[in-house]
Amino acid sequence: DFAKIDHHRKLRQGMSEVIFCEGKTKEQVLKIFERMIEKGEVNIIGTRASREQYEYLREHLKDDVVYYETGRIICAKRVEIIKNPKGHVAVVSAGTADLKVAEEAAIVLEILGNNVKRMYDVGVAGIHRLFAHLDDIQSANAVVAVAGMEGALASVVAGLVSKPVIAVPTSVGYGANFKGLSALLTMLNSCANGVCVVNIDNGFGAAIVAHMINSLANQNL
Amino acid sequence: DFAKIDHHRKLRQGMSEVIFCEGKTKEQVLKIFERMIEKGEVNIIGTRASREQYEYLREHLKDDVVYYETGRIICAKRVEIIKNPKGHVAVVSAGTADLKVAEEAAIVLEILGNNVKRMYDVGVAGIHRLFAHLDDIQSANAVVAVAGMEGALASVVAGLVSKPVIAVPTSVGYGANFKGLSALLTMLNSCANGVCVVNIDNGFGAAIVAHMINSLANQNL
Amino acid sequence: DFAKIDHHRKLRQGMSEVIFCEGKTKEQVLKIFERMIEKGEVNIIGTRASREQYEYLREHLKDDVVYYETGRIICAKRVEIIKNPKGHVAVVSAGTADLKVAEEAAIVLEILGNNVKRMYDVGVAGIHRLFAHLDDIQSANAVVAVAGMEGALASVVAGLVSKPVIAVPTSVGYGANFKGLSALLTMLNSCANGVCVVNIDNGFGAAIVAHMINSLANQNL
Amino acid sequence: DFAKIDHHRKLRQGMSEVIFCEGKTKEQVLKIFERMIEKGEVNIIGTRASREQYEYLREHLKDDVVYYETGRIICAKRVEIIKNPKGHVAVVSAGTADLKVAEEAAIVLEILGNNVKRMYDVGVAGIHRLFAHLDDIQSANAVVAVAGMEGALASVVAGLVSKPVIAVPTSVGYGANFKGLSALLTMLNSCANGVCVVNIDNGFGAAIVAHMINSLANQNL
Amino acid sequence: DFAKIDHHRKLRQGMSEVIFCEGKTKEQVLKIFERMIEKGEVNIIGTRASREQYEYLREHLKDDVVYYETGRIICAKRVEIIKNPKGHVAVVSAGTADLKVAEEAAIVLEILGNNVKRMYDVGVAGIHRLFAHLDDIQSANAVVAVAGMEGALASVVAGLVSKPVIAVPTSVGYGANFKGLSALLTMLNSCANGVCVVNIDNGFGAAIVAHMINSLANQNL
Amino acid sequence: DFAKIDHHRKLRQGMSEVIFCEGKTKEQVLKIFERMIEKGEVNIIGTRASREQYEYLREHLKDDVVYYETGRIICAKRVEIIKNPKGHVAVVSAGTADLKVAEEAAIVLEILGNNVKRMYDVGVAGIHRLFAHLDDIQSANAVVAVAGMEGALASVVAGLVSKPVIAVPTSVGYGANFKGLSALLTMLNSCANGVCVVNIDNGFGAAIVAHMINSLANQNL
Amino acid sequence: DFAKIDHHRKLRQGMSEVIFCEGKTKEQVLKIFERMIEKGEVNIIGTRASREQYEYLREHLKDDVVYYETGRIICAKRVEIIKNPKGHVAVVSAGTADLKVAEEAAIVLEILGNNVKRMYDVGVAGIHRLFAHLDDIQSANAVVAVAGMEGALASVVAGLVSKPVIAVPTSVGYGANFKGLSALLTMLNSCANGVCVVNIDNGFGAAIVAHMINSLANQNL
Amino acid sequence: DFAKIDHHRKLRQGMSEVIFCEGKTKEQVLKIFERMIEKGEVNIIGTRASREQYEYLREHLKDDVVYYETGRIICAKRVEIIKNPKGHVAVVSAGTADLKVAEEAAIVLEILGNNVKRMYDVGVAGIHRLFAHLDDIQSANAVVAVAGMEGALASVVAGLVSKPVIAVPTSVGYGANFKGLSALLTMLNSCANGVCVVNIDNGFGAAIVAHMINSLANQNL
Ligand SMILES: Nc1ncnc2c1ncn2[C@@H]1O[C@H](COP(=O)(O)O)[C@@H](O)[C@H]1O
Ligand SMILES: Nc1ncnc2c1ncn2[C@@H]1O[C@H](COP(=O)(O)O)[C@@H](O)[C@H]1O
Ligand SMILES: Nc1ncnc2c1ncn2[C@@H]1O[C@H](COP(=O)(O)O)[C@@H](O)[C@H]1O
Ligand SMILES: Nc1ncnc2c1ncn2[C@@H]1O[C@H](COP(=O)(O)O)[C@@H](O)[C@H]1O
Ligand SMILES: [Mg+2]
Ligand SMILES: [Mg+2]
Ligand SMILES: [Mg+2]
Ligand SMILES: [Mg+2]
Ligand SMILES: [Mg+2]
Ligand SMILES: [Mg+2]
Ligand SMILES: [Mg+2]
Ligand SMILES: [Mg+2]
Repeated sequence: DFAKIDHHRKLRQGMSEVIFCEGKTKEQVLKIFERMIEKGEVNIIGTRASREQYEYLREHLKDDVVYYETGRIICAKRVEIIKNPKGHVAVVSAGTADLKVAEEAAIVLEILGNNVKRMYDVGVAGIHRLFAHLDDIQSANAVVAVAGMEGALASVVAGLVSKPVIAVPTSVGYGANFKGLSALLTMLNSCANGVCVVNIDNGFGAAIVAHMINSLANQNL
Repeated sequence: DFAKIDHHRKLRQGMSEVIFCEGKTKEQVLKIFERMIEKGEVNIIGTRASREQYEYLREHLKDDVVYYETGRIICAKRVEIIKNPKGHVAVVSAGTADLKVAEEAAIVLEILGNNVKRMYDVGVAGIHRLFAHLDDIQSANAVVAVAGMEGALASVVAGLVSKPVIAVPTSVGYGANFKGLSALLTMLNSCANGVCVVNIDNGFGAAIVAHMINSLANQNL
Repeated sequence: DFAKIDHHRKLRQGMSEVIFCEGKTKEQVLKIFERMIEKGEVNIIGTRASREQYEYLREHLKDDVVYYETGRIICAKRVEIIKNPKGHVAVVSAGTADLKVAEEAAIVLEILGNNVKRMYDVGVAGIHRLFAHLDDIQSANAVVAVAGMEGALASVVAGLVSKPVIAVPTSVGYGANFKGLSALLTMLNSCANGVCVVNIDNGFGAAIVAHMINSLANQNL
Repeated sequence: DFAKIDHHRKLRQGMSEVIFCEGKTKEQVLKIFERMIEKGEVNIIGTRASREQYEYLREHLKDDVVYYETGRIICAKRVEIIKNPKGHVAVVSAGTADLKVAEEAAIVLEILGNNVKRMYDVGVAGIHRLFAHLDDIQSANAVVAVAGMEGALASVVAGLVSKPVIAVPTSVGYGANFKGLSALLTMLNSCANGVCVVNIDNGFGAAIVAHMINSLANQNL
Repeated sequence: DFAKIDHHRKLRQGMSEVIFCEGKTKEQVLKIFERMIEKGEVNIIGTRASREQYEYLREHLKDDVVYYETGRIICAKRVEIIKNPKGHVAVVSAGTADLKVAEEAAIVLEILGNNVKRMYDVGVAGIHRLFAHLDDIQSANAVVAVAGMEGALASVVAGLVSKPVIAVPTSVGYGANFKGLSALLTMLNSCANGVCVVNIDNGFGAAIVAHMINSLANQNL
Repeated sequence: DFAKIDHHRKLRQGMSEVIFCEGKTKEQVLKIFERMIEKGEVNIIGTRASREQYEYLREHLKDDVVYYETGRIICAKRVEIIKNPKGHVAVVSAGTADLKVAEEAAIVLEILGNNVKRMYDVGVAGIHRLFAHLDDIQSANAVVAVAGMEGALASVVAGLVSKPVIAVPTSVGYGANFKGLSALLTMLNSCANGVCVVNIDNGFGAAIVAHMINSLANQNL
Repeated sequence: DFAKIDHHRKLRQGMSEVIFCEGKTKEQVLKIFERMIEKGEVNIIGTRASREQYEYLREHLKDDVVYYETGRIICAKRVEIIKNPKGHVAVVSAGTADLKVAEEAAIVLEILGNNVKRMYDVGVAGIHRLFAHLDDIQSANAVVAVAGMEGALASVVAGLVSKPVIAVPTSVGYGANFKGLSALLTMLNSCANGVCVVNIDNGFGAAIVAHMINSLANQNL
Repeated sequence: DFAKIDHHRKLRQGMSEVIFCEGKTKEQVLKIFERMIEKGEVNIIGTRASREQYEYLREHLKDDVVYYETGRIICAKRVEIIKNPKGHVAVVSAGTADLKVAEEAAIVLEILGNNVKRMYDVGVAGIHRLFAHLDDIQSANAVVAVAGMEGALASVVAGLVSKPVIAVPTSVGYGANFKGLSALLTMLNSCANGVCVVNIDNGFGAAIVAHMINSLANQNL
């Protein structure tokens, strides 16, 4: 009995536990998915999942299992996703190498019913690329800003919008980057208003916060 | 011409620049307030303000100037604050010593029109104190969780609610606390969903994020 | 003569030297076990042991050798373990991934004669899981609290009991977790009374302290 | 209402909340003492207290208030302390400069009813000084080992006893000592069995753990 | 004989030694200025100088001594400064609080004969303020970019110009800023081309590098 | 569409985007090269490239592709490189192990048209080796100084020249070197004038700054 | 020409350059040995050498090549080693795992002509093991003290002798050991007189210092 | 009885305990001096002593008490110092600001009977200043090298001599110097042979090591 799944979480938090697959065997992951299905959970999500874990699940589960390669996400799709009628979350990222983390955020957001607009590779070294997307950024209910190296993107974006920016530092970089510490500190010290930060490479965590905000924005519709 | 006030900010961000008073002379603070008044800004806020700076402003400004001692905030109140019709932000804090930072958040939130429910000194060492407030926490649109030392409060709160928790680590503690680093890392590594983090002691920053979220929750009313 | 075994230790410390197997060849581990058997040591323990080292020992030693896979422990059982007549040590852990370290503690405790109650995957993100075990925690003579990520479990537990809590930070997590630093600092800064801390991932070290405490609690029976 | 005293703590933890006086005004400290007296708490302890806070309390409280200068502790003695019938806690410290922290531990232990044996200035640079006290150390139920600079004392002591050693790193030292980090890491990495660690300079925390252990050792008498 | 002035430096480095006044008594500073004057040095510069040190020098030196309050620079002006005929260095800074460091750079540059264009308080939180100065930035031979907090300014500026950007992190900020570490790491990890970095708060060091570059750009005129 | 190449960069920065190949598949690298060729870019550079990536490109591109093994650089040579008529950049390095980084700098400089003089293995442990090259160092328009371990080379060189020294700390070393942190801090704290620093192992970044400086020095010829 | 061997070193430093083999190919190592032989160097030492590098050398060099497995040292023995007539260096080490580093020191010392007394696995957890060797330690001209984990051995030894102790922290340990940082800080903060420290795992460096001291002690014989 | 003076130390270590005066009251310092005089100790040294402590001692002790202002050392001179007949220790320092630490080393060395040659302000930024003293450095039995900022001096000196260099990093500098960490790491990573390191600002510690070495060099005369 290696895992006490928190089935009660949906009551308290409005969504089921999401499975962190890294470091678990494919058999363990399967067992957790099966137990959650028994309990009646729908559209179960596994993050940091390998293709191997996915293939094992697809083989052994009756439900429709999908794998998102770049975002490393497995989803056992059991009911149709009901999209929010209005509004979107913007996911912006700085460099090519931040893609994995940005996609982790974007896919989780979509499975939870949010409309997502992606704007990738728009880092501050060529800031005109960001301005080309100004409308989609400024009209979002929340922005997830993903950046490694110096992580300046979050501040620049936050200076342009009036909605919360959830900043995700990534471990992209080398040397004095210290595995994401550099971007993390940058984002925590943002001189722009409205920035909050999640752990290094934690696209999933940012998606949950953005989803909660977007749900609040949609609640009185 | 030591400061280029960002008057344009209101258009982009929905609120005027807030003045960080620490490290500025009372004459500099006055000059910035005056220039903002000229430009027609209303209810101008100064944070990290000393009583001395406040008294100097009260003397020299015609407008109604208020000082919030614990939160170290000056407000030049020029129009009536219009409270949100519905919903509130919860501000919870762990220990007696975290009060200053919690009040910085609470006062900024109130000046910006949010209803605030304060729950102070409810740290995890005596977790029953937190549970006594469960309703007010779970019904909030956003929670600002302020804690120093080990900062565990944010995780416990986030496990109980379905709304975003904006965690503020404080520099309260000594030794291996390393001026707030301990609480900061705790909050960034939260195992609970829906936590995002601002800088150590940055009650102001948390207030802005919570205000933006609460505004979204009120927008369709 | 690569290792001077501290046979004298039992006199000074009441228990024989325990062998740290990581980084030693299976031949070296065997030789140390053999020498300890010669000297008359009983129930010799090896920690951080691989299955391969175990199999080599089982093959070459006459005694009954047992391997505890999850806790990575080898025990050459030479005499019957005499359990404490009364009282127990509680081993609580936060997440699925902390299992290894929790089991290292639990197994060492059992081999040394302690009654152990395990409560796993009861992290603070779903605090009701912890409360379900309140009785077993509050009646223990000592609690070993194992947690990675933000390590908040130790504080919450310590707030509920009147016995020492030996906190074990684990290296479980990523990013700003910095290989366990986050949980370590959390535990050192605990705002709850009665927490003491051992090295990151050091389930063995915690077991020894808990064993010493439990022995004291049993000494006058 | 700046502080929610945790009166319930005694039920859960067997002892009342102890007041951390540093950073509180003398008026605040008085108010907390008064409220605790109202609730019927006895022998109330304040740590990190200044002489000034003490004098203010002595003036305004009817009870017998005592101040321990070196340990910076105030105690409002309201009932006779009942000493443990048997056994003692050893408090050993390395250098002259560690005295403050050692005394914080020793005084708290004594107020809580423990017999304490002090062995100060017995650092490892002149290890014969430690051996002169071997009997008193080996017969203790628990040892509090206080050391700054390189903090080696804890390991040497732990190698000599079969009871738990609660190690307190102090911020004594300079340069690469990094305000106690050096001693903290030393103690966490102790190669000797039975060492657990509390925060830098946290004599109080060590006292609580040692008191809990000594209480267990006395419980069946 | 507490200081061996490096009079030979001018031959090797094209400019005399500059005096770091912080931590020296006014008498020591005077003695060094006097010895340099004896050796025939011209326009001697002292950095990190106090008003008190300045007043002492003005009193005791025959030469024309000037004090630049914000930049904390003393200059004993002994010959007319010969300005470069063409080209300028741009000094841009992010916030009001970075002024001191920016002025240290600007004044040193001017004393060494460079034309300087200052653009202050143009941080990335309101990026339109920076774009208003685009021409002056893009036409400079070198840019000194001064920023504290997250230090993102250097990357944004470097993305807009084809000349070297000398980035100066400042210690402005609090909390996770760690006295300038945050801005330092940001700048070292810049994703834009052409950024090099000097020590935290080292406006002087940046000025020397920018001066050397601007001199090269003027050498063939 | 995983990468938005910044074709516009040449206008703003005078040179095209350079491709960081590490962490990209050979197919991705090829696609980026192809798109840049389509846009008419010439002499496209890839850094941190593996031999495998190179061979894939050579096979699939029509242009002349060259690989510089030690510097790990691919260049798609499409037009003749036009060398600067006058002046050179000196690349000095401390130990045998810093070669890779020094060559990254030297090759990039040469592809961009600079004359380069290499002086390798001239570290300060045998300082006469450096002095043997004094002329070539002092006559350079800029010096790139590459050093690991304690990184003292940059200070010594900067003390000898009147041109900017771009210091590149390398991750060469072990133990308290902390992957280049030691050399990085050394270089940032240089007591010599005219040193600026790039990220650990960032030979490419140093080359760009040196190239910009050398171009300025050549502009009026 | 990847390496400029410092043949001149013998004149300046009394001994030839020693080759750091880690990270070099066997061909490179051979070439360096050959060049040193040409120049007439004797008894050439390579440290951090692999068995593979050794076998390659043995095959290709005419001289007598020896490999010391544990210390990872290659020596091309070309003349008879002349031992010091009197006095010895003591090499003490704390745990089994520190052996490699201790042997690196001991072998280098022996090749340079020093008499060496080894005392291994005498860590402070069982301090009687150290006292058993008191004579050999106190009569040495210098002591090399090798220890990982908390590194307390150096302080205890230095408290017992009147000769210099060269402390070598090792990277042995885990968790809060931070790859040797713990032992390094311990040793730098030693409260005992006469301790100096070399880099983590730098047995070679300690050997050189001890050799220099022992040579001085022998010089007037 | 706040201090157990280690009178036994002279037997074990050849010299009496030296009193660290910082943080002790003048009364405490007096009492320790008096007790040492009673025990017959001669030429008692106090380091990090204030002028105030000195004046108090001079007033109350019968012996000849001397104060060395720059080195902050008190010496109660009770017998004539017997200088070594031959050989000297060189104390070299990099900048004006390192003087205090260099003098701490030099004075302690002289009181212990060593001939000392001082070479101050000879930092690597103007390396010709160091070469002017080459003879005195190369003929020393040991060199104490004191440097702050980047601390490169130790490596350069060690490259020039065949005797041990005891490197003392100082806390001189700012920003990325991190209170001496920069120089400390530089010195630990020295690429030159024969460097060993003591704690930041620990001139006293370096003096003891150098004195021990010089004594060995003189022992057979
Ligand atoms: N990618 C992710 N990053 C951080 N936390 C995650 C991620 N995916 C899932 N989680 C959380 O990890 C927890 C599961 O941890 P475990 O009990 O170890 O399986 C759940 O509570 C999730 O909220
Ligand atoms: N308490 C606070 N903590 C962090 N930032 C603040 C605070 N108060 C105001 N600010 C921000 O500080 C900026 C002003 O900085 P400055 O230009 O230096 O006056 C504004 O953009 C505010 O958004
Ligand atoms: N010297 C001390 N060091 C650490 N914690 C302490 C100390 N003294 C009291 N405490 C704890 O501090 C808490 C009170 O904090 P506060 O609510 O800020 O007054 C109590 O729960 C005590 O257990
Ligand atoms: N300047 C100094 N730096 C480091 N240690 C010192 C210094 N001066 C004296 N000591 C040592 O400090 C110890 C005395 O410490 P304490 O018992 O606290 O007085 C003695 O053993 C001396 O060897
Ligand atoms: Mg790109
Ligand atoms: Mg409280
Ligand atoms: Mg779980
Ligand atoms: Mg002492
Ligand atoms: Mg501003
Ligand atoms: Mg070499
Ligand atoms: Mg052993
Ligand atoms: Mg100087």
